[in-house]
Amino acid sequence: MSIVARLLFAIVALVVFGGTSAQSDPLPSWNDGATKARIVGFVEAVTSKGGKDYVPPAERIAVFDNDGTLWSEQPMYVQLAFALDRVDALAPEHSDWKRKQPFRAALQRDMKTLGESGEKGLLELVMATHAGMTPDEFQKTVRDWLATAKHPRFGRPYTELVFQPMLELLAYLRANGFKTYIVSGGGIEFMRAFADAVYGVPPEQVVGSSIKTRFEVRRGVPTLVRLAEIDFIDDKAGKPVGIHKFIGRRPIAAFGNSDGDFEMLDYVTSGSGARLGLVVHHDDAEREYSYDRKSSFGRLDRGLAEAPKRGWTVVSMKNDWRRIYP
Amino acid sequence: MSIVARLLFAIVALVVFGGTSAQSDPLPSWNDGATKARIVGFVEAVTSKGGKDYVPPAERIAVFDNDGTLWSEQPMYVQLAFALDRVDALAPEHSDWKRKQPFRAALQRDMKTLGESGEKGLLELVMATHAGMTPDEFQKTVRDWLATAKHPRFGRPYTELVFQPMLELLAYLRANGFKTYIVSGGGIEFMRAFADAVYGVPPEQVVGSSIKTRFEVRRGVPTLVRLAEIDFIDDKAGKPVGIHKFIGRRPIAAFGNSDGDFEMLDYVTSGSGARLGLVVHHDDAEREYSYDRKSSFGRLDRGLAEAPKRGWTVVSMKNDWRRIYP
Repeated sequence: MSIVARLLFAIVALVVFGGTSAQSDPLPSWNDGATKARIVGFVEAVTSKGGKDYVPPAERIAVFDNDGTLWSEQPMYVQLAFALDRVDALAPEHSDWKRKQPFRAALQRDMKTLGESGEKGLLELVMATHAGMTPDEFQKTVRDWLATAKHPRFGRPYTELVFQPMLELLAYLRANGFKTYIVSGGGIEFMRAFADAVYGVPPEQVVGSSIKTRFEVRRGVPTLVRLAEIDFIDDKAGKPVGIHKFIGRRPIAAFGNSDGDFEMLDYVTSGSGARLGLVVHHDDAEREYSYDRKSSFGRLDRGLAEAPKRGWTVVSMKNDWRRIYP
Repeated sequence: MSIVARLLFAIVALVVFGGTSAQSDPLPSWNDGATKARIVGFVEAVTSKGGKDYVPPAERIAVFDNDGTLWSEQPMYVQLAFALDRVDALAPEHSDWKRKQPFRAALQRDMKTLGESGEKGLLELVMATHAGMTPDEFQKTVRDWLATAKHPRFGRPYTELVFQPMLELLAYLRANGFKTYIVSGGGIEFMRAFADAVYGVPPEQVVGSSIKTRFEVRRGVPTLVRLAEIDFIDDKAGKPVGIHKFIGRRPIAAFGNSDGDFEMLDYVTSGSGARLGLVVHHDDAEREYSYDRKSSFGRLDRGLAEAPKRGWTVVSMKNDWRRIYP
């Protein structure tokens, strides 16, 4: 061949084979098998122009739970660890907390008494530590905390205890025209403080539980202030409500790990056309945690029982994931 | 020149001059002048890489009011015209409406009595006509109505009475990497029924007033149902609250036309860096309507008085717009 022909051949080879090769495994941290094949098959089906399952890019909406689905939620929700540390930090300004529940239990890390204070007690903690400031101030507090707090078992920052296979899945879906949303029972502003940097999910694609805010003009400056009043609980039957409120159309793929995601999975996968429902099962005590039906955080009972008949794929962290953390 | 050189030259010329020429007037329905120059200057400033006012694409958020900003709101809000027609359509199932206010006034188009029924009366109308069905059913009702209803003065469908200069502005901003949102006091599901087709704004970028929905499984099918209960009023001080809730960051450009947009304009334009605040002034009785301080729909009083000192640009429909409707 002439030099020109060789060059042309090399370019063609690069484009054809190089391109294919680079795309050959978009999910390197997922072991080959039925789970990975199901995910890839779904994405190929909805992106194949002219295929019977084709979905236009604008309708390729995927929703992800956060705690236990994108990052670890044991031995307690990260946001609860944050709230407890905030109680410590704010205690000097509240001398009565030493005697008053649930603050006394929080200060002593008396998880049994804290648990017995129920949802009402936990809400009191959240209100005392999450309200009264502007959203910017709150996000700064969250970021400062995330920069220094360490997971009690792994000794690493919480933002490093995100699941590498799920990061790859987020990126793979986005590369295929999907808009990826977080839909979590966690606080919306808590998640917005790190979701963009950690997951590549911008603030406007984070749906979560919220407290109310009020608009005020303080000394001529327009400001929002966080109020000690529940606005919306984005959990269980609240998740489809939150999806409808914020997104306004039914997603085609949903990813969860607990019964708090059941209604979201049900809502998403019962739509017409190709759908993907996926449940992360924490069955890897060695590399992460092993829990399901009896856990107080991220209980998975009904979802595990009904996944097969509903066509939801159960991901075994132990068997399906080559690695857990980045 | 050789043929190859000529060809190369032609390609270069096409790219350089063709490209520039096609972009020379992105806003053909805006008359040249200070208003248009202000808009173009702002967009060029925030998109000039390395410039002092540069804003990364992810933060280029622009928010638009709907009624009176993107389409006509006289002689009454389009959604009110819809609600009145729905009262007519549903009246056979509600024999008591003939005697019961505010339904009697609605059936008789007695706008004086209707006005006297106040916000409470109007809410009663909305609840009776907008709740009790699924969001899909509601949107279908809206679309069916929009396909046949005509504006009383212009005799055209309401979706044709959108402002051509604003359609160009939406497209111009999007072409420059902006994400365009609607933030309106109107009903979120009412607007979502047409915003994508008419404005190119997808459902997830529509923020509005809402009633609550409930998740239900009806005969095995997961469904949302619209409830006769207010969830959120996205007007006045509610607009910054809605922006923060749905978008989670402060937009850099806001477009409104009434005092209902005052807080939104204030919130947006008081952020740091380059900001654009724009108020559409309805001063064209011939081609559209002329109203401001005393109108019951879209009253503009404080906004008109304070625009200059706040740096908001007032758009004269009469002088700044070459044409009104497409």
